[in-house]
Amino acid sequence: MSRSLLLLPGDGIGPETMAEVEALIDLLNREAGAGFTVERGLVGGAALDAHGLPISEADMAKALAADAVLFGAVGGPQWDGVPYEKRPEAGLLRLRKDLELFANLRPAICYPALAEASSLKRELVDGLDILIVRELTGGVYFGEPKEILDLGNGQKRGIDTQVYDTFEIERIARVAFELARTRRGRVTSMEKRNVMKSGVLWNEVVTQTGRDYPDVALDHMLADAGGMQLVRAPKQFDVIVTDNLFGDMLSDIAAMLTGSLGMLPSASLGRPDETTGRRRAMYEPVHGSAPDIAGKGIANPIAMIASFAMCLRYSFAMIREAEALEAAVAEVLESGTRTGDIMAPGCRQVGTTEMGAAVLKAF
Amino acid sequence: MSRSLLLLPGDGIGPETMAEVEALIDLLNREAGAGFTVERGLVGGAALDAHGLPISEADMAKALAADAVLFGAVGGPQWDGVPYEKRPEAGLLRLRKDLELFANLRPAICYPALAEASSLKRELVDGLDILIVRELTGGVYFGEPKEILDLGNGQKRGIDTQVYDTFEIERIARVAFELARTRRGRVTSMEKRNVMKSGVLWNEVVTQTGRDYPDVALDHMLADAGGMQLVRAPKQFDVIVTDNLFGDMLSDIAAMLTGSLGMLPSASLGRPDETTGRRRAMYEPVHGSAPDIAGKGIANPIAMIASFAMCLRYSFAMIREAEALEAAVAEVLESGTRTGDIMAPGCRQVGTTEMGAAVLKAF
Ligand SMILES: CC(C)[C@H](C(=O)O)[C@@H](O)C(=O)O
Ligand SMILES: CC(C)[C@H](C(=O)O)[C@@H](O)C(=O)O
Repeated sequence: MSRSLLLLPGDGIGPETMAEVEALIDLLNREAGAGFTVERGLVGGAALDAHGLPISEADMAKALAADAVLFGAVGGPQWDGVPYEKRPEAGLLRLRKDLELFANLRPAICYPALAEASSLKRELVDGLDILIVRELTGGVYFGEPKEILDLGNGQKRGIDTQVYDTFEIERIARVAFELARTRRGRVTSMEKRNVMKSGVLWNEVVTQTGRDYPDVALDHMLADAGGMQLVRAPKQFDVIVTDNLFGDMLSDIAAMLTGSLGMLPSASLGRPDETTGRRRAMYEPVHGSAPDIAGKGIANPIAMIASFAMCLRYSFAMIREAEALEAAVAEVLESGTRTGDIMAPGCRQVGTTEMGAAVLKAF
Repeated sequence: MSRSLLLLPGDGIGPETMAEVEALIDLLNREAGAGFTVERGLVGGAALDAHGLPISEADMAKALAADAVLFGAVGGPQWDGVPYEKRPEAGLLRLRKDLELFANLRPAICYPALAEASSLKRELVDGLDILIVRELTGGVYFGEPKEILDLGNGQKRGIDTQVYDTFEIERIARVAFELARTRRGRVTSMEKRNVMKSGVLWNEVVTQTGRDYPDVALDHMLADAGGMQLVRAPKQFDVIVTDNLFGDMLSDIAAMLTGSLGMLPSASLGRPDETTGRRRAMYEPVHGSAPDIAGKGIANPIAMIASFAMCLRYSFAMIREAEALEAAVAEVLESGTRTGDIMAPGCRQVGTTEMGAAVLKAF
């Protein structure tokens, strides 16, 4: 049995945190005969510097061929001035689009050991466990026209287009309903149907799709009210399904609520192949490339490790290993081992490699 | 001297809260010879029920003629099924657009007496005072095409268009820079330039406009990171300038942070008329129509009253009266008088009219 992985560590703290995952992959191969084969590639600023493109065609081909892609982070101030088409993020967006990774799963859980780190009052986030299901290949991220027109007389016009078709909404809604069945059985759909026609269609299609899931409770919130409710009382939610742009905002806010931004993973999934059942997938931390702390050996590798746990679960059905890895992370946190971002009085501060080693040992 | 006001109480708790402002207007006329003349109109569901439109042409004409419009709230479940073009919100959007109220000022302040009510830890919000300057007549709210196409074969396509021209970005940026000069001298501009071309243009125009304000510190954040930072450490901000849709989300979140959602006002301003200097303006609470508590006499009228204070300041340069009214609100809160939404142990719970009367007495 072979399980092929493509590692795209990217920029900033990406490579440092990815190294800790590589150690876990080696361990699984060595001690559990997991049979992972590993390829490596470049993305973002690293790819731009090497190939003049935010991802090369060769690495795109590897990504298309791999069972799963592990993605670190992209971007940094040194690439702030590059043309829009070549900016580091374009590599990430191309991966999402060409791999058709329409379903982005972003769990926002609050590790009990870290509840104090949240800016919210402890009782509001303690035990928090919500899942944001974000549409990832449509909406304003990819709709055309997307351009800047020169109108002459010193005026320019910036245009982006939000587009959603019925099938795109339906398939992401199904992912949300299916996942809600494995959780607490509630889906909240968020849009701005009071201002956006795509929001009207979103609301209509999610409602209709919900009829196939009578065992799941569905409600709808306007995205602005939803953002408020997330900050006011996040535990009221189970699964939130929303579009690409609202999902970007709302999942970042949810992540921040947990006090565990450096801890949160995500999975981006395509649809199962009709013959092989294989489902394209990419796993990446919710945090960014954190250029300010890159290369110092102090970044928190847990989000990257937790992303690998999602990979074990969703791409390889290695449920037992995924759970063991998640338990190892919780155990290390309980023991008081902390990177600087989550340091608390009475805990022991460590760097990236010690944190990785501690998780590996507890695994 | 005559000062003309149009009152559009709208739906839900709009009429109850507006009644408390009317009492203040009467007082200012009676005791300070303020010379307010008052007209009344319908908007939202109330207008729809009466005229079949979310605002009648006659009331639009009154709004165009008034020195300032006071707006309550619109919407409610009884109008959820009405066609998109006639929904209650369409009345509000038409007022914003036809009055060209491009600058929406949303202060998020945390009344010391209420810091405990925030879901954030007290030290993060105590003394919070930020101002969100939201572009209000452009972006995805009004861009064309905005439609749902029937593609046949059971598929529909929902389309919205985000459009910004240089002049629209420049004029809202100037409002933000000017206001920052009267505050702590900092502007943070938020967009998604890493995914949106309108964000690229936004960033470019704000940067360029900022050169005219060398005394104001300008920085830029991606809107998702900005949302996170709002939740993590809101006091880092002074003035935030952002587009219509991001402004909708971010200002609601900022409002929620203060623990004072029922307390927050907003001002929507047009450009000064070239000959008269008069500036069209509308003032409205940030909260909605709260249909669940409408008609019970328990709604908090403070956001509506604070909106009237903004009206005194921005439309009539009655700075002394505006400050006195704001001080009256703070005093009443300090004294422990509370509506149900902000009730706390040891305080005295009152209804809408008692709260209005208490503010009037302290004024
Ligand atoms: C880096 C950026 C393009 C990306 C996005 O906007 O989707 C990021 O914010 C995310 O949420 O994964
Ligand atoms: C009622 C609605 C159309 C409106 C908006 O989206 O602008 C509201 O949310 C607001 O923020 O004033």
